Amino acid sequence: MKIQSPPGMRDFYPEDMRVQNWLFDAWRRTSRAFGFSEYEGPIFEYLDLYTLKSGEGIVSELFTFQDRGQRNFAIRPEMTPTLARMVAARANALPRPIKWFSIPRMCRAERPQRGRLREFYQWNVDILGIDDPLADAEVIAVAAAFFADVGLTPADVVIRVSSRPMATAALKRLNVPDDGVETAFQLIDRAERMPEPEFRDQWSRQFPQAASGEQILRILAQQRLEECLELARDAGSAGKLAADQITELWEHLRELDVADFCAFDLRVVRGLAYYTGVVFEAHPRQGGLRALLGGGRYDDLTGLLDGPRVPGVGFGMGDAPVLDFLRQAGRLPKPAETIDVFLIDADAKLRPELLKLATRLRRQGLAVDFSYRRQPVAKQFKQAAARGARYALVVGDELATRGELTAKNLATGEQRGLDAGRLSADAHNLLNF
Amino acid sequence: MKIQSPPGMRDFYPEDMRVQNWLFDAWRRTSRAFGFSEYEGPIFEYLDLYTLKSGEGIVSELFTFQDRGQRNFAIRPEMTPTLARMVAARANALPRPIKWFSIPRMCRAERPQRGRLREFYQWNVDILGIDDPLADAEVIAVAAAFFADVGLTPADVVIRVSSRPMATAALKRLNVPDDGVETAFQLIDRAERMPEPEFRDQWSRQFPQAASGEQILRILAQQRLEECLELARDAGSAGKLAADQITELWEHLRELDVADFCAFDLRVVRGLAYYTGVVFEAHPRQGGLRALLGGGRYDDLTGLLDGPRVPGVGFGMGDAPVLDFLRQAGRLPKPAETIDVFLIDADAKLRPELLKLATRLRRQGLAVDFSYRRQPVAKQFKQAAARGARYALVVGDELATRGELTAKNLATGEQRGLDAGRLSADAHNLLNF
Repeated sequence: MKIQSPPGMRDFYPEDMRVQNWLFDAWRRTSRAFGFSEYEGPIFEYLDLYTLKSGEGIVSELFTFQDRGQRNFAIRPEMTPTLARMVAARANALPRPIKWFSIPRMCRAERPQRGRLREFYQWNVDILGIDDPLADAEVIAVAAAFFADVGLTPADVVIRVSSRPMATAALKRLNVPDDGVETAFQLIDRAERMPEPEFRDQWSRQFPQAASGEQILRILAQQRLEECLELARDAGSAGKLAADQITELWEHLRELDVADFCAFDLRVVRGLAYYTGVVFEAHPRQGGLRALLGGGRYDDLTGLLDGPRVPGVGFGMGDAPVLDFLRQAGRLPKPAETIDVFLIDADAKLRPELLKLATRLRRQGLAVDFSYRRQPVAKQFKQAAARGARYALVVGDELATRGELTAKNLATGEQRGLDAGRLSADAHNLLNF
Repeated sequence: MKIQSPPGMRDFYPEDMRVQNWLFDAWRRTSRAFGFSEYEGPIFEYLDLYTLKSGEGIVSELFTFQDRGQRNFAIRPEMTPTLARMVAARANALPRPIKWFSIPRMCRAERPQRGRLREFYQWNVDILGIDDPLADAEVIAVAAAFFADVGLTPADVVIRVSSRPMATAALKRLNVPDDGVETAFQLIDRAERMPEPEFRDQWSRQFPQAASGEQILRILAQQRLEECLELARDAGSAGKLAADQITELWEHLRELDVADFCAFDLRVVRGLAYYTGVVFEAHPRQGGLRALLGGGRYDDLTGLLDGPRVPGVGFGMGDAPVLDFLRQAGRLPKPAETIDVFLIDADAKLRPELLKLATRLRRQGLAVDFSYRRQPVAKQFKQAAARGARYALVVGDELATRGELTAKNLATGEQRGLDAGRLSADAHNLLNF
């Protein structure tokens, strides 16, 4: 019986896995440079953890199941609820600030169709326990540092930054009622992914008294940071605070040398209700519907879980949009499989010596391989090349007569005779020619 | 509403994650030293993939669910079916031998109780496409190399090696009928985990004509390799082949210098029906019910999936038994969180300089942190120590006057004045005192 991979799920053959590990390494390296610690959580959680925050409506987007004890679970569709649960459980014991990152895999019950993944990895970076624009700036700087690390520049990618309080002030001036702001955010968040007439239609049905959908998008797009700051400062103390905070954020982005990656854009509002302050998304400069990352400040996630109030700021970056973008831009590396040494025996009777040597080299941390089947020497050299070996080491009769092996650098073709005893103790230095 | 972690699932706070990463690093390092390539598969598969191999009986041990298209899925309880599916799908394209490893997370629907995990990680190491005792020896040598890598010796751990064909020959001599051998293997596999009277009882009900359960265990335990080889060689061509193979395996284990970790033990039979040749398990020398790893040779996994026949040998090692064993033996490291540099500002007005310096150091790959809140200098030094920083770097007035910073090695207390310009270009060398 032939069984396929489930729809929307990926198999990572070694050549795919090398690309994933290249991405994961860049995520880890960047996180650590900024002093973040890695954490992980379970692959599934109680279903309540997701409905609590997002309502029953989210269930259709989840893979849910029961155990024999009739408990309801869901495979995690995002990491933030797990983060909130873990932080709430130890809120009083964890030293502040909490600077954590994770690279969880997660699933969403998307309708299977080309390019729509049901399982993906998402880099999560969060700073909790501090309510200061410097933390917002650090988190945005982490994202920018990752882009730079994988060779992307401000000409390739833009991090669009906004502020929910400032967007709220703007919407109110355009006659969106107080209790309609959250709905307006969700509509605006989806605007780029739907045909414009549809957006205008939905908008005018929701907000017949407010400015038209067309005006809204145009006005939000035209707002410059300086004008918004002025308007916000006129809109009472909350507006003034938001203006001061985004001013301070922008100073820090300059000091951290990532302002080139950033643009103020009031259209970025994020669709999730838990954001309370700065929000941001990254997109290819040349457009593209999918955000490369999304994040913002949330000031009471842990409160939902009966924990003390812990403010936070963070983002999530999926693996697929980033890899797709790099692939389309021709910037995705193709890491080759390499090993350090391929051992070759000149004669079947030398096989025991070859195995002993393999063990001694591996114990020094070298990646060593050899042919499991006895093959002519020329064929073994071919295998060495196919395996991407840096050096071929030939075990021949000189081993018995002179205690020597022949090493060949497969990139340059240079050959050297090496003392077998010294090689067994100091291979890293001897295999460096 | 307070929501817990689901029963049997683990949260990995940073201190736990460091231990996991320590283990994963050792698994990866060892795999790569032996020339294995990493792969991964989806977190859930079609349910059929598991029932095909193990029958409907396995469903109760799985977390199963449907999507909206009524397809049946299960979270993976092991990696081997995924491996077989992936290899079968590309059997003709993959270069041989296929040397692959993976560190999948997986779930089993265990009844929630103390110490019984529902989710765990399992290191999988397999060589496919070759049917040679040298491949069996390599796989066992990988396991031994991992034990040595984490500081375990043959005095701590034993890899018990057996051969299903030789065990079959022994059981037949004890009057187990041909069609009862697989059932006998499953009973013997469970014998160590059940009270002896229960085993004897089950055995005599299953095999009333055969030697008693007590005799069986005693005889299997007493069998020495040399005697078994003689008996197997007398038991026809299959027996002779099995004897030759295990003889060759043992030679290779000696040549690979891991024979000290290994012991022949005919009681090891493994409970999974797909094993066809050599089988092995690792256990603490001092006893302990849980195997640290289990594996063996399987010669037709891919055939089940309509693929061409691809012989293979491999093992799986769970994270929990290994970590528990190391913890109980007091050998589990407690990796500390460390960063390279903690930046300290002597004055609030120097904060912008501190942020610029942080960026320049991070771009050189250093892990850099600082206080987000303005604090007195002494407090910042305390934070530096709490973060496990190797160096504290003080940004003070000398930066403006002389272009200099003060660096302090927090382990030795040694202080040096450093040129800020040179530090921005060559921090790795300057911060090495």
